[in-house]
Amino acid sequence: MKAVKVGLLGLGTVGGGTATVLLRNADEIQRRLGRAIEISHVAGLHIAEQTIVDPARVKLTEDAFEVVNDPDVDIVVELIGGYTLAKDLVMKAIDNGKHVVTANKALIATHGTEIMQAAAAKGVNVAYEAAVAGGVPIIKAVREGMAANRIQWIAGIINGTGNFILTEMRNKGREFDDVLKEAQALGYAEADPTFDVEGIDAAHKLSILASLAFGIELQFSKCYTEGISKITPEDVNYAQELGYRIKHLGITRKTDKGIELRVHPTLIPKKRLLANVDGVMNAVLVYGDAVGPTLYYGAGAGAEATASAVIADIIDTVRSIDADADHKVPLLGYKPDAMADTPVLLIEDVETAYYLRMSAEDKPGVLAHVSEIFAEHKISIEAVLQKEPEEGENLVALILLTQRVQEKNMNAAIKEVEALDVIQGGVVRIRMEHLN
Amino acid sequence: MKAVKVGLLGLGTVGGGTATVLLRNADEIQRRLGRAIEISHVAGLHIAEQTIVDPARVKLTEDAFEVVNDPDVDIVVELIGGYTLAKDLVMKAIDNGKHVVTANKALIATHGTEIMQAAAAKGVNVAYEAAVAGGVPIIKAVREGMAANRIQWIAGIINGTGNFILTEMRNKGREFDDVLKEAQALGYAEADPTFDVEGIDAAHKLSILASLAFGIELQFSKCYTEGISKITPEDVNYAQELGYRIKHLGITRKTDKGIELRVHPTLIPKKRLLANVDGVMNAVLVYGDAVGPTLYYGAGAGAEATASAVIADIIDTVRSIDADADHKVPLLGYKPDAMADTPVLLIEDVETAYYLRMSAEDKPGVLAHVSEIFAEHKISIEAVLQKEPEEGENLVALILLTQRVQEKNMNAAIKEVEALDVIQGGVVRIRMEHLN
Repeated sequence: MKAVKVGLLGLGTVGGGTATVLLRNADEIQRRLGRAIEISHVAGLHIAEQTIVDPARVKLTEDAFEVVNDPDVDIVVELIGGYTLAKDLVMKAIDNGKHVVTANKALIATHGTEIMQAAAAKGVNVAYEAAVAGGVPIIKAVREGMAANRIQWIAGIINGTGNFILTEMRNKGREFDDVLKEAQALGYAEADPTFDVEGIDAAHKLSILASLAFGIELQFSKCYTEGISKITPEDVNYAQELGYRIKHLGITRKTDKGIELRVHPTLIPKKRLLANVDGVMNAVLVYGDAVGPTLYYGAGAGAEATASAVIADIIDTVRSIDADADHKVPLLGYKPDAMADTPVLLIEDVETAYYLRMSAEDKPGVLAHVSEIFAEHKISIEAVLQKEPEEGENLVALILLTQRVQEKNMNAAIKEVEALDVIQGGVVRIRMEHLN
Repeated sequence: MKAVKVGLLGLGTVGGGTATVLLRNADEIQRRLGRAIEISHVAGLHIAEQTIVDPARVKLTEDAFEVVNDPDVDIVVELIGGYTLAKDLVMKAIDNGKHVVTANKALIATHGTEIMQAAAAKGVNVAYEAAVAGGVPIIKAVREGMAANRIQWIAGIINGTGNFILTEMRNKGREFDDVLKEAQALGYAEADPTFDVEGIDAAHKLSILASLAFGIELQFSKCYTEGISKITPEDVNYAQELGYRIKHLGITRKTDKGIELRVHPTLIPKKRLLANVDGVMNAVLVYGDAVGPTLYYGAGAGAEATASAVIADIIDTVRSIDADADHKVPLLGYKPDAMADTPVLLIEDVETAYYLRMSAEDKPGVLAHVSEIFAEHKISIEAVLQKEPEEGENLVALILLTQRVQEKNMNAAIKEVEALDVIQGGVVRIRMEHLN
């Protein structure tokens, strides 16, 4: 059989990794696929200086549209990122009848609906395994492996930078800003770290997972997003003392009222596997009604780990080239005519447990006052941690763990607690999930 | 589109679970597949007494061959287990041009080559996701998700019974026999627990994983298999003290000399995720050259967890019904004409690290004697743990951790150590892997 021709847009970290792995493992891939995959056309910046592909055999260009319009290219692999040029290129590729593989979560999360509709109309594949959790085949697991299940919830560590920072803070008692600087120096975090540490990148990925899990439209704009920049070593330590770890999780859950879609720091019991996923690694816990909890772990970023997912998508795309349209795996997991309009819940309507920390004056009755307010709002306290004041200090740290309660009730209770004379400053609140 | 008709062989634990989940989640499955899956014919013992499927709509029989020969059945789901009748039924189903889904690891491990050849000749699918790690989609992950990688090694907890026993021994300091009895009472272990605790079940699963990972024939008979029945609470505790946990692992690794294929108790560092997989849960760690380590975790057994994998296979089979043969996922991951004849290594030729425990007389020079023997065999000692003798005792427990060495060298060294006058009884040896 003749080789499949791939046009590569971008020869940076992931593009370079993809070309490297395709060349290095060509024989192994052909043993599995029965067909060679050939990089025939590559677009990149300063492409004349590249040393990864052989310029005698591969067309090189700085104009990505040349690749997308090349009639010899079967599959366009978009690895330039962003959602302006990338969107135009992907739409043009689809319009030209080419299959598309992309690692671009921002693109799928924000323009996925339009892209998938165009692809379905043209009968081409759009594959995006690398867009969530890098090399971990989580899209395949949710979309195919779990296909027998009503998926109930997903909780994932889907941003390696954030997980690296929280791991360092916990292991070494360091401050957020200090670790962030190191992450930037190591190349784990961008110069502008907002996307990673404020949870936007995780929200992109989570909205893709939610669509696949529940058969709803991509709804990135409705994802509640809270970052880790306000987490302090104090909270990391108290959590630890209470048997928990703080992880930056993307959580989506189907409830009777709608779908929760939220990214925020979360206390989880430290004996959970997810609590033991450290450093830049990613892991996603998926709970299906039949299978129960399943977890998928691996590198969420990096040149070759991401390439692993990109190339798996190329292979899957080749395998589905002649498949009957009725029988293909739907691009978003559910048949387009079977998508549900289940609403995404506002964060106020989400129910979760909480870790609360406040500074209280060291005098009798404070705990009674605070407890009473929570009781009035029907919030049960699960655990209390109160430390003796530091010598010469008049304030004590009071930490409460609550049972599950709707966020709006918690907001009302916190407002009242903060108004107490004996409470100084605001109440620090971190959501808590038991994941069982 | 008309419904796909499924014939179910067996309505016991997994068969009942499969029927239950297919009925309960019929709408969700159809949203994904775009087509209904209908159980049309079921064979089972005492079938007249069953209450899961509606006898007004489903043909029932005690003769499984009636299902296999039913011209209306598209896919035969074999859930009766064993490899005598099950093999005849599967071969007959293939001969009748039907696709087959099975959860039967013993069948695939021992007769898989013949079954796959027959299936390829007839152009039908044989799917067996449920045969390894129950509900965890590990076959799909290795065969498709990792398809870009040269897989280097796999290490898995792939028998829940064994993992439950080792977890209880560690958490509660209990003896093997004692926990085994409880596992039997709980229904986790069979009346004859040999398959589980002596590693035969794990060896079946491992030989399937090795075939998928490396493109070699199924070679269950060449798998080195050692059970957990000789593990003592003593060793569990010493391992813990040294920073390790004992897990019953299936390990397969590609080396320059051949492929390691071995099931045995193994010390692994306790900070590894795999070391934290407890109770009846399964987890498989797969190391690919591009992606690095990935881990897949979930329920390895149970009615609905196994059903989750069986039904995912039915869905995949329907999706591939019209696919071009050249483009289908090969049944064993590699194209039949691209299988390698890489030899499976004898255990003597395998290289691993070791935990060794011996009873030594409490007198000067013992450690020097022992160390000298290991040095002569070029075995490096990584760590030594020697406890003071119990009051009134003359023997001390001496524990050594070694670096990696070929098993035959270790055998020779142990023989010499055991011959020393100052060493009482045999040397207990447990292999050790760092999994990095």
